This record gives sequence, structure tokens and C-alpha cells, in this order.
Amino acid sequence: MKNNAITSRNVDFAKWYTDVVMAAHLASYTSVKGCIAIEPNGYALWEKMQSILDKKFKELGHENVQMPLLIPETLLKKEGELVNGFAPEVAWVTQGGSKKLEERLCIRPTSETMFCDYYKTHVSSYRDLPKLYNQWCNVLRWEKETRPFLRSREFLWQEGHTIHSSMEEAIDETNKMIEVYKWFHNDILAIPSIVGKKTEKEKFAGAEFTLTNEALMYNGVALQSGTSHYFGQKFSKAYDVKFLNKNNNLEYVYQTSWGTTTRMIGGLIMVHSDDKGLVLPPKIAPKQVVIIPINDNEKIIDLSEEINKKLNDNNITCYIDKSDKSPGFKFAEAEVNGIPIRIEIGPRDLENNKITFVRRDTSEKYVEDINIDVIEYITKLLDTIQNDMYKKALDRRNSLTFTAKTIKEMEEILNKQPGFIHADWCGDEECETKVKEIKGCKSRCICDEPLITGKCAICGKDAKYNVIWGLQY
Amino acid sequence: MKNNAITSRNVDFAKWYTDVVMAAHLASYTSVKGCIAIEPNGYALWEKMQSILDKKFKELGHENVQMPLLIPETLLKKEGELVNGFAPEVAWVTQGGSKKLEERLCIRPTSETMFCDYYKTHVSSYRDLPKLYNQWCNVLRWEKETRPFLRSREFLWQEGHTIHSSMEEAIDETNKMIEVYKWFHNDILAIPSIVGKKTEKEKFAGAEFTLTNEALMYNGVALQSGTSHYFGQKFSKAYDVKFLNKNNNLEYVYQTSWGTTTRMIGGLIMVHSDDKGLVLPPKIAPKQVVIIPINDNEKIIDLSEEINKKLNDNNITCYIDKSDKSPGFKFAEAEVNGIPIRIEIGPRDLENNKITFVRRDTSEKYVEDINIDVIEYITKLLDTIQNDMYKKALDRRNSLTFTAKTIKEMEEILNKQPGFIHADWCGDEECETKVKEIKGCKSRCICDEPLITGKCAICGKDAKYNVIWGLQY
Repeated sequence: MKNNAITSRNVDFAKWYTDVVMAAHLASYTSVKGCIAIEPNGYALWEKMQSILDKKFKELGHENVQMPLLIPETLLKKEGELVNGFAPEVAWVTQGGSKKLEERLCIRPTSETMFCDYYKTHVSSYRDLPKLYNQWCNVLRWEKETRPFLRSREFLWQEGHTIHSSMEEAIDETNKMIEVYKWFHNDILAIPSIVGKKTEKEKFAGAEFTLTNEALMYNGVALQSGTSHYFGQKFSKAYDVKFLNKNNNLEYVYQTSWGTTTRMIGGLIMVHSDDKGLVLPPKIAPKQVVIIPINDNEKIIDLSEEINKKLNDNNITCYIDKSDKSPGFKFAEAEVNGIPIRIEIGPRDLENNKITFVRRDTSEKYVEDINIDVIEYITKLLDTIQNDMYKKALDRRNSLTFTAKTIKEMEEILNKQPGFIHADWCGDEECETKVKEIKGCKSRCICDEPLITGKCAICGKDAKYNVIWGLQY
Repeated sequence: MKNNAITSRNVDFAKWYTDVVMAAHLASYTSVKGCIAIEPNGYALWEKMQSILDKKFKELGHENVQMPLLIPETLLKKEGELVNGFAPEVAWVTQGGSKKLEERLCIRPTSETMFCDYYKTHVSSYRDLPKLYNQWCNVLRWEKETRPFLRSREFLWQEGHTIHSSMEEAIDETNKMIEVYKWFHNDILAIPSIVGKKTEKEKFAGAEFTLTNEALMYNGVALQSGTSHYFGQKFSKAYDVKFLNKNNNLEYVYQTSWGTTTRMIGGLIMVHSDDKGLVLPPKIAPKQVVIIPINDNEKIIDLSEEINKKLNDNNITCYIDKSDKSPGFKFAEAEVNGIPIRIEIGPRDLENNKITFVRRDTSEKYVEDINIDVIEYITKLLDTIQNDMYKKALDRRNSLTFTAKTIKEMEEILNKQPGFIHADWCGDEECETKVKEIKGCKSRCICDEPLITGKCAICGKDAKYNVIWGLQY
């Protein structure tokens, strides 16, 4: 059933996207320019993301903290690259109560400075290291063009900030955390992801290097979805974060940071959803199963309650739609909200000792015997849906992954259908900038795969890297 | 064992308080005036508070959302009382990126305005009601004098904002939520609390009435710890939030809000803690049991691991202190961090088939047989500690609860020892203001108890209320 509130994905992808956001009650616009209200369905998704990631972070020894929202201007300015990277897009508080402030405070666009300022006074010896801190919070960047979840002035995220006594350990942490993001995308969000290093031009302001997790949306546009930065001693030198090492010498700490944001909700939509609304992989769906009793016959209600209890008792989140809406309306609502499995229990089915199961991702219907082991059946079906959704997304990505030998070929591909384009690169920023002239196409990451021709697709000189290029959100 | 980093509670209560905050690594000062960094031990407490309250809110049908951090000035100003109450203490963003903003934005001191603005466009019929929304977030108030957790410019809280189709339902919600806070304080935080109505002078700006949860600290000073407000239609009229009722007439919604904050961490300290550091009731302690092996003898380590596993498998949070510090240092650290039970396993004990259990709250030691059912034993002991801590706090509060017949008696009591003072009041704001001249003593709440003399303790006219008065944080 087509949802009339939703523009068709193939007609206008951008409109389809915001229609899904609104129709599934994930978020809505507000009176504050560039800022959204995250509604219950959207926030439940974020809570589920938080709970899974937070558990993993803690298993890896990280602890949660909370640093201030406001950063004094002088503190922000201590590290030149960071401030140059972020200054054009921060919001400044200049007045507190009725008084003009002596020093402006910016609302954090990211918290490297605050963590450094904290670590400076809390670390003195190698015995205090590593510090593996993370915080869940809001940040603000004064973006000009915004889009719900993908780019908004305020957004929610987690930012890990760790300091270590050696370069090796810090680099190991940087690698480890991007792998956590990759696992989360592949295994939980069913979004196939590629991990690689950003080029010098595209890395985070102030980082020695940046690792990125890149996903490809249904329309072939890339979404950077999780990054992990190695700072070396850049910030620790700027903010004077030193420790006494085992040889009793003062040394600057080695630092990392890594983050994921509510933009992952945008990724979920743009990879999996369709013209009927949201489609959610079971592992991230806040509600996995909905039972829709076709009428309020006692037998139907009793069976609904029985199945509902069984599933919830076995950690499958299920609810019964008991509202006074029509069954057709309830089906459409379950669809637009992306509930992975719908169970229909109707009088005709019941007469024949049958129940109907409907998959959200494929719309397939299965009419099964009433005496089926419902826990085993649903568990297996949720698994199948999760795997099928991943496979479908991977097939889509593969069909949109291209290889180009020259910049002309890159342009031809991008004019026809955007996607991930592999092309060799010499490492020269000038060549990278030239690619950007094609519709703003950027390097996504340097990948591990072997060179294609051995020559830079842009200048023809010897190539150093096989790079993935693409348009981006 | 006295902790040398901590001033004695009876010598300097204020200094003792901040010493405990720092020594237990709950929070530390930052370079941002009036803003703290919440450290891992403090944030773990907040996470535990969040998880228990959030579960309860959801059981009662509430859903979480997230509204914007920034509020445009014109929007804030729509409700006159609210803006008058908060305007002197908000921070203003006047610059975004490199541009001066056309309209100032304030950082939310509370979010009634944003919720109203949202509800206005999302509610049209009685079928859309009630909306039971809550958000966990940071807020900012430009306080002049600050103190970790008790009063800081930025703090973390939850704010529930609900709208209803009738006055009765909204008042019921207001009552229900203050009872949740009372339950949380009494049963989880072991802080005996009194619930009552605030006077007109002390109620929340813009509320019809405010219910408050009041706790008494060890030093006899009161802490307002959770409030629930009934707004009637005040905000819905100011922000034009209407619905079509069952009779097909447009009507303004009936509204509530209710909140608790990280200041509850301050309450936990000031009610329960002592000169050795933090003391935590087991139900809120992020870590309930620590095992300290006296040496690294294999038998000792094996037994430690065995007990640790058993307890964690049975939902008792336990850890082994395996660091290379001395046993004495480990004891002191477990004490300052407020771990409710310490298990010591040493060679001499083991020879005699014994294990030692030490209570943090009373320092009592119990030497028990090694074959004791450790799960049953610990479960019971945690229960005993929880109950004893509540009883101790209640006894302390009772010993600091006084009755006064005249304002002179109130003054005598306050000069000797602050506490909760019951005194009759005529209801006249002038009398209330006179009491404030005694060291800033304010009405805490109007209580249900019968009148004492029947005459106002201040002016001598007929009294209407038995009011609890006291100094406050």
C-alpha cells in the first residue's frame, strides 16, 4: 500500500526523505532555524543506538563523563587548526543574565578543548593513563543548509576522548573504535560500511589522521557515519597535558577522539526505507513486532495477549495495537513506522487454526498453523529479515560501486548515476581539488585495495592510493 | 580511618561537602566559571538515577523526546511570568558563525516554551491527548554563586511536559509525578522526603501551583529536590495550544511539568556521607560490593573470582580491586568512593575458613564462615544497609524538626540549629517576607498536618496553614 503522505523515492529522493521523517514521526521542524525536535519514534531509535554502543564502549573499558557546554574563547583558540576549522560555524554567547560577558563563550562544536583542559589538571603520571572517557551530549554547529538528522545546527552525539602513554596504544585505540563503528553499522544497522583513512584535505581539523566509516545511500550519495581521529601530541602540546613516564621524564600524552551522531538515523532511512515509510532492521527497531487483532472477539484478544506476553518475556519487543482505528489504518501505521513483523489475527484465520505473519521489508505474507512455536518462529524470522536487509543493501552498494581510470570517466559515471567510484590518486591535493569541480565530488577515503592502473586518474602521474570518491551529504 | 583529604563535617560543613565531591571523584571545577566537569564516579551515579527514573516514567506511559537547546527571544517572551522569572538568569547567543544574529537566542533555562511551540502544531483533537513527553538534557541558568551539583550554571536534568484534555487529568498527573519523586527519594536514595505545596511566593514562575519534594540535609539546611507544576491553561493560552474537545468545541489544553536534576547527587552526599567520604545507599550505588584480596596467593585470587562471578551473575554489581596498591590504600579508596560492602579475603582468615565483610555505612565488620551462601548473605546485608541508612536519615531529620508558635521562637531555633520548623501562617505574603529576614529562612511547603496554635506565628491573626520553614540550598 502506497502511503499518500510520502513522495515516491524514485520521483524526488530529497522530498521522499523528509516525508518519511515526518510521516514516521521521527522529527519535526521547530521555530528555531536549523534545529529539529526529535519526536518519540526518533528518540526511541537514538536510545536503542545509545544502549548498544554504550554497552560496547564500557566493555572496552570506557567511562562516561560530562564536560561543560560552553567553551571560553581563549581556551578554544589555543589549538590553531581546530579553531580555524570550527570558528566559522560556532554560536557565541556574549551575554549572561543582564550583563555583557568579559569573554565570549562558544557552544561546543566538539569537546577536544574541554577534555584537554580537564586532563591537564588530572594527569600527572603514567599510572593515571590511559584515560578512556566518553560523553553523550548535544553539540552545535552553525550550518547554513540543514536537513533533519543529516545536518542540523544542534545534534546529539557521543564523543570519546582518550589519552595514552604511548603512540602505539593511542593508534590502537583509534583503530579499535572505528572497527566498533563498522561492526555497529554492519551487524546492527544492516548498513554495509567501508573503513578507510581520510586524505589530508578531508581529515579532522587538528588530527594527525582520521579514520572514517563510509556508507552509501540508496541514491548513491555517500554518508560519513562515524569517525575516529588520532591526534598524536598536537593537542597535548597546545594544552600542556603532560605526564611523568616510566623513565621519570615529562612527556606529552597521545590522544584520540571518536564520534557518532543522530545522523545515523538519517542513514537508516536512506539505506533501507521505501515508499511506504520507514523500514528498520530488527536489531535496532525499538519495537520489533506488532500484533493487530482484526476485531475484538474474545478468542482473538486472548490469543493476541498470549503471544504478546510470550514474545516480551523472551526479549522480543512486541505490542498489541488496541486502538479503535480500522485494521487497514493499523497496517499502514505499522508500515510507516517500520515495525519489522506484523502479526494479524482475524476470525477467518482463526476458524482455520491459522495466524498471518507479514514482513515489513518485503511485504511477504506467511499463513502459519496456530500451534507454531511462536518464539522460535519470530526469532528466526527477525534474523532472516536482518540478514536479508544487509544483503539487499550490500547488493545495492555493489551495483553502485564503479571503477574509473580517468577523471573523464569519473565525470561520466557521476553524470549518469552517483555512487562509490574507485580511482587511483597520486596524493597531490591539487588533483583532489580538481575532482571536486565535478558536482562537489570528494574523496571518501583511501582504501586498502590494490591500485587500478597505477597512474593518477587526474594528472596521469604515478599513483599512490586507490581512493573511493563520491558525492556526500 | 579518617581521610586526610576531607575536612571534618562538624568543623566546616561547606568545605567537607566540596572535599567529598573532589575526593570521591564525583566532579571537578573547570575553566568555565560556574560549570563543573562530572567525572566517571559522579556520572555513573547520574546514569543509575536516570535508568531507575526513566523506567518508572515509561511504565507510566511517558515517552522521551528532545527539543532544541536554543529559544528565540520572541518565543520566550510570550508568557510574561515565565520570562520575568527567568530573564535575569539566562545566557544569550547573539552571534552565529561570523554574523550577528537578527534575533537573540537564549540557552534553555527550562523548556515550557519549546514544548508549547511543538504541541501547538501537533495537537488538534482530544484524540491526540494526552501527550506525555519527557526529555533528559542540559539546561543553563546564569547563577552568581555556584556549588558543585547543588547550584551550577549548567546542569543535567529531566523535564517532563505533559498536556491533557481536562483539568482533573492534568492535576492527577501533577500529583502522580511528585509521588514518583517521593518514592525515588525514600525507597532508592534513602532520603526521607516531605511533599507539599509551595506558597504563591515560592511557586514556579507561571504555574497555577507547584508541588515540591523537600529533603533535610545533615546540617539542617533544606534541599528542594524535585518539583511538579500544574499550569492549567496559562501557557496554552499564551502559546495558543488548542484542541477540539468531544463536544466539538475548541479548548486550550491543560498542562504540567516536573523535573529532577543532578542536584540529587548533592543531596545524597549531604544526607548520608561522612568524614571518610561518600556513603551510598545500595540501591543507587553503581558498584555495590568490592572484593579486596589481601595478597595474590592463588587460593585467595580464585575465591575472589568465584565470589565476584556469583554476585554479578545475580545482579549484584561487584568488582575485584586487583591494582598493585596496598590493602590499606584499597580500603580507604573503597571507603571514599562509598562502596556499600567491602569483602576482605586474607591468608589468616582463609586458614580459619573465614571471610570478612565490612559495611561502609557503620564500619561494622563481620567475620563469616567461608561456606556461607554468599548471594543470600550479601542480598540481605545490602537490604539491611539500605533500610538502616533510611532510618538513620529519618532519625536525624526528626531530631532537626521543630515547632514554633511565634516568629521569635523561629528565630531562636534558627540561631541555635537550623532544621524544618513547623509554624502556622495566615497566608499573607507580608508575613512570609518577614520570616525571610531571619537568615533568609523561607517557606519550604504547606503541609497536611493540623494547625499548631491556630494563629499566624508572625502576625497573630487567624492561621490558614501549617507551614514548614527552613534555610535552603
